[in-house]
Amino acid sequence: MKSVKAFAPATVANVCCGFDILGFAINSPGDEVYMTLADRPGVNISKITGDGGKLPLEADKNTAGVAVASYLKFIGRPEVGVDLELHKKLPLGSGMGSSAASAAAALVAINELMGNPLKKRELVPHAMEAERVACGSAHADNVAPSLMGGFVLIREYKPLDLVSVSFPERLCCVLVHPHLEVKTEDSRRILRNAVPLTDAVAQSANVAGLMVGLLQSDFKLIGESLKDSIAEPVRSFFIPGFDELKSIAKIAGALGAGISGSGPTVFALCNDLKIAERVGEAMVDHFAKLNLRSDVFVSSVNKKGATVI
Amino acid sequence: MKSVKAFAPATVANVCCGFDILGFAINSPGDEVYMTLADRPGVNISKITGDGGKLPLEADKNTAGVAVASYLKFIGRPEVGVDLELHKKLPLGSGMGSSAASAAAALVAINELMGNPLKKRELVPHAMEAERVACGSAHADNVAPSLMGGFVLIREYKPLDLVSVSFPERLCCVLVHPHLEVKTEDSRRILRNAVPLTDAVAQSANVAGLMVGLLQSDFKLIGESLKDSIAEPVRSFFIPGFDELKSIAKIAGALGAGISGSGPTVFALCNDLKIAERVGEAMVDHFAKLNLRSDVFVSSVNKKGATVI
Repeated sequence: MKSVKAFAPATVANVCCGFDILGFAINSPGDEVYMTLADRPGVNISKITGDGGKLPLEADKNTAGVAVASYLKFIGRPEVGVDLELHKKLPLGSGMGSSAASAAAALVAINELMGNPLKKRELVPHAMEAERVACGSAHADNVAPSLMGGFVLIREYKPLDLVSVSFPERLCCVLVHPHLEVKTEDSRRILRNAVPLTDAVAQSANVAGLMVGLLQSDFKLIGESLKDSIAEPVRSFFIPGFDELKSIAKIAGALGAGISGSGPTVFALCNDLKIAERVGEAMVDHFAKLNLRSDVFVSSVNKKGATVI
Repeated sequence: MKSVKAFAPATVANVCCGFDILGFAINSPGDEVYMTLADRPGVNISKITGDGGKLPLEADKNTAGVAVASYLKFIGRPEVGVDLELHKKLPLGSGMGSSAASAAAALVAINELMGNPLKKRELVPHAMEAERVACGSAHADNVAPSLMGGFVLIREYKPLDLVSVSFPERLCCVLVHPHLEVKTEDSRRILRNAVPLTDAVAQSANVAGLMVGLLQSDFKLIGESLKDSIAEPVRSFFIPGFDELKSIAKIAGALGAGISGSGPTVFALCNDLKIAERVGEAMVDHFAKLNLRSDVFVSSVNKKGATVI
């Protein structure tokens, strides 16, 4: 095979109580990569669409390029070269795992072209390397679910321990992306370096509850566990009317809601797609009343992760 | 029925990463209560054995007495009176949930005498009231598992949300109680009021991992998640050679080990009773080398909680 097309889904990192340790993938939207083997070594990014010209074509500055280079080095095939087209379907800097999805799609594509020597979870470190270049930290809470699908717990970084957490079939997600710019650096800088013991305990309790809720298909427990004592109290300042927005989502039928990644996108979990659509409308209306345009995405939780298409 | 006998098991609170939010019950040892309906109102504690004369016979100062009084008030039967004998089989102040077991046994006994109007999880608040009297804080991480059995997550206190977490059949526990005195107040006082963000995140990750390990019967994950970034780093100073003890337990085959409650008892989880016995011997030997006598208890995890016998 000489060329391949791959898809990797958007992801919600943090999931309220899972700050820095949890993420899940949704079925759509996602980024697409077309990759073709080339005659000369190295990664050549020939085209990027859907980014409004914002992303670098230089492979060593682009997450897709960095991930592929890291992968080729790891499998000991430095002589391989590829041409790569990246079709962005995710908004940039939105908190929906845009940089992760590009890296994940590129990794699935190159792994397919190389005859799939690595499993999807083995691709994660190469996508983390790309995150390090894009965001300054090699976090896995977007790349792991984008590659592996479903909910992924990053139990430990050294050594990397990724735990797939099963979830109820009916679980679905609303993402509402208000047209605001929040820089990841800013949203990380405002976090406290120390947290009150009571907040740390509450966060532990809720993430434990979320795990049990997901594994035992207990929607009530899932909803009640969607609380964040660590990041949300400060990050929510970036999102106009955030507390009201959460109430609106719950009144419309959501199990719970929170900030997707470092924002500004807001997510809500629901146990029914029709309810999720209603929740999405209510959230968009909320932003509209504040004169903010927003895009809404409703999707079930993705099971497969990044795939060749 | 005029009289009844009840049993409530010892418990391990905290379970490393579940600081202040998690506990589990073991099959033995446990406390026993004999209770008889009396002709006059109030709780009369006629006899306590096994405490070396240390526990108060005054009902309003004894956890069993306080729990029964709280229960009778709640069900609106202030005219009821009981005579109560308490047979302590748990060492006092050991970190094995001794005060909790007495309250739990007394509550199951009085509930039986009253025709079981309350479910076991509904008895928890009355046992918490007893903990408030005994320890100064109405914590639930011993009383909830002693009453309900198994692993219980206290996801939230206000309102109280108790989550039973299923666990693998083969899971068993070693408790080694070194003959040391550690006051709960001391072991609480040395805790920091704030924790570094990185420690809070690690704690969340491990308790999430433990929940997944228990629910998916993943012994490796259970073992790797038995880490405590919050209490153990300071509380372990009270336990001679603690780090070495943990290594010894793991070398002998334990999945992991930690401090039971606020200590000084140390627990280890194993996936086999024979291994657990070997682990117990190794831990006792460790303390013996430091000229410390210790008692060892090996038991599978209790499923039923407190019961009438």
